Amino acid sequence: MFSVTVRDHIMIAHSFHGASFGPAQRLHGATYLIDATFKRETLDPDNIVVDIGRAAEELHAIAADLGYRNLDDDPAFAGMNTSTEALARVIADRLAARVHAGAFGAAAHELAAIMVTLHESHIAWASYERPL
Amino acid sequence: MFSVTVRDHIMIAHSFHGASFGPAQRLHGATYLIDATFKRETLDPDNIVVDIGRAAEELHAIAADLGYRNLDDDPAFAGMNTSTEALARVIADRLAARVHAGAFGAAAHELAAIMVTLHESHIAWASYERPL
Amino acid sequence: MFSVTVRDHIMIAHSFHGASFGPAQRLHGATYLIDATFKRETLDPDNIVVDIGRAAEELHAIAADLGYRNLDDDPAFAGMNTSTEALARVIADRLAARVHAGAFGAAAHELAAIMVTLHESHIAWASYERPL
Amino acid sequence: MFSVTVRDHIMIAHSFHGASFGPAQRLHGATYLIDATFKRETLDPDNIVVDIGRAAEELHAIAADLGYRNLDDDPAFAGMNTSTEALARVIADRLAARVHAGAFGAAAHELAAIMVTLHESHIAWASYERPL
Amino acid sequence: MFSVTVRDHIMIAHSFHGASFGPAQRLHGATYLIDATFKRETLDPDNIVVDIGRAAEELHAIAADLGYRNLDDDPAFAGMNTSTEALARVIADRLAARVHAGAFGAAAHELAAIMVTLHESHIAWASYERPL
Amino acid sequence: MFSVTVRDHIMIAHSFHGASFGPAQRLHGATYLIDATFKRETLDPDNIVVDIGRAAEELHAIAADLGYRNLDDDPAFAGMNTSTEALARVIADRLAARVHAGAFGAAAHELAAIMVTLHESHIAWASYERPL
Repeated sequence: MFSVTVRDHIMIAHSFHGASFGPAQRLHGATYLIDATFKRETLDPDNIVVDIGRAAEELHAIAADLGYRNLDDDPAFAGMNTSTEALARVIADRLAARVHAGAFGAAAHELAAIMVTLHESHIAWASYERPL
Repeated sequence: MFSVTVRDHIMIAHSFHGASFGPAQRLHGATYLIDATFKRETLDPDNIVVDIGRAAEELHAIAADLGYRNLDDDPAFAGMNTSTEALARVIADRLAARVHAGAFGAAAHELAAIMVTLHESHIAWASYERPL
Repeated sequence: MFSVTVRDHIMIAHSFHGASFGPAQRLHGATYLIDATFKRETLDPDNIVVDIGRAAEELHAIAADLGYRNLDDDPAFAGMNTSTEALARVIADRLAARVHAGAFGAAAHELAAIMVTLHESHIAWASYERPL
Repeated sequence: MFSVTVRDHIMIAHSFHGASFGPAQRLHGATYLIDATFKRETLDPDNIVVDIGRAAEELHAIAADLGYRNLDDDPAFAGMNTSTEALARVIADRLAARVHAGAFGAAAHELAAIMVTLHESHIAWASYERPL
Repeated sequence: MFSVTVRDHIMIAHSFHGASFGPAQRLHGATYLIDATFKRETLDPDNIVVDIGRAAEELHAIAADLGYRNLDDDPAFAGMNTSTEALARVIADRLAARVHAGAFGAAAHELAAIMVTLHESHIAWASYERPL
Repeated sequence: MFSVTVRDHIMIAHSFHGASFGPAQRLHGATYLIDATFKRETLDPDNIVVDIGRAAEELHAIAADLGYRNLDDDPAFAGMNTSTEALARVIADRLAARVHAGAFGAAAHELAAIMVTLHESHIAWASYERPL
């Protein structure tokens, strides 16, 4: 299995609901380093998994849409805790939608899976992996 | 599949038995960065894999118990080489025991696996993954 | 010159005032990795710059006071942009006050300077250094 | 499953064929950080996955053979794009050949898989994993 | 003293002249992570050292001009070894010229110094610092 | 001012004397990442600060002499706490002696200073800088 990963980041505000979150129930924020990994069994005719420049652009567009915002005000996240792991799924699903929409080119239909890892600090991170 | 990882570290002394270890047969030591990863298929009602604060506390307790010691003197490791990969299993097994004992809360019974990675330097690390 | 550095982090929300900040004028947030460096010309009788455990505790107390908050609501920051460089000074000044208050022990009066570096992402960070 | 990883690096020149590579069609270069991961289900009699010193030496020999060169001039890569993912496979295959040749010792025949990750920058990396 | 640092990278080919360079006399290449640090004694009216977005754009323009090239073919480097430390000076001087040309805005005339660090691998890097 | 840095590491056992060290009074150990920085005002005729290969070899020789040992048993450290900052000075002084002995070549007599940083974990490090 091959994979290619590109990194970007977002800086957002949010708060959590539930006593177990302790002080994180207050409005606070995070820088999330986003690692988006694309997997496939074989390489395409250019000998790559995916056009890394296009992958970086697509990830950056999703990051730009999420970043510099208070996620508590985003209708897309109404009633849900925007935990690191939940946001990893949001980004993976948005990337998958872009792959299915053809944004990664024709050869990308052979992509097998997408994994997104979000680093919330130097001591904590979370991932979500899904098939394509 | 979702995962959450928390990082801690220990600083220990030990020595290895076996000619293939070369100078590491002498009493020496290591800082091990410990990355403990918890995996599950779906998120719990709080939209998380595991309470990250609780995970950090449990890992820290295990680290505190192992750290600032000469592992050669620990009866738990009598007759075994405390290699990086072997210590990764020790920590994963201790975390698994804590999960089974309920220390991570009721929702944690849906955790699927634990992976522990120990970094012994900037150029070498080892992992152990086990089901729960 | 000797130095010792300890790392901690905070997760905060804030917004900036000024057209040059672009989208960062919106309420957003950041994880700041905080590196607090203590400098002195000679080592103390224990052969150290500062008790690293005590330094970590003092930094953690300052981080706990700042973290998991919306800095826009903190009277200490009224009317000021809590830029990365400005927050570095706030933390350095609070650490200096603790040194002067004796929290780092008697030998710490020989500390020459404090530098604080705040990493806002993997591609941007800022520092402030001041004498003691 | 256990794994052990060792890191090395190479510094090479190359160019890519295909309009999608944009400016990377020009002769340029890269530092590749190489992470070679060895996996096995159980530990050997020394309680290790593989002799980490031997693994580092074998990886270093492969790196020395590839490094400080213009890959465009290497007959082994004639007519192929030496993308990060393609080079990851080259290195994994060369390591696998060394395992099969006995270079990692008798116990290494129980190795299950090799994964090689090549980091081309702080924001992009690629991997290839294969069974042994 | 305050400072702000932004990171970018380039991927280039080059070769060195001089027996002491050993195999690096051959055409090879490098990924250089570029950390550009801007220093000043006091913050500007916006409470910053420099507009971080503008600093990132200026650094990126310089990186785009240097990157994806064989530096041996660049007339700007004719007859000189493009060592990591020499390239750090090139980039620092180009940034300084942009500051003097007003590209960083009016408040930037109070910048005191620029330091550029180039990381050629995980085990080697070089810096150059100059006044403004 | 120019600088060049090379990284290596050691894995040692030791213990500390003094109540303020708490559990670190017990025999334990550390992996120290060693960053050795060489500074000079101008570049040599090869356009470098120092032969980076030679610098790496000299640092490696010092590391090999210190590593895989219990520092408590080393007569060179009798009666002293081998704190991170104290070891940084030991390594800087040994490198300086090698420079003065001519091991870095004739051009190295223009080196201005050496700084050594030892990372004991991902959250703590120490440095020592001295003139040459």
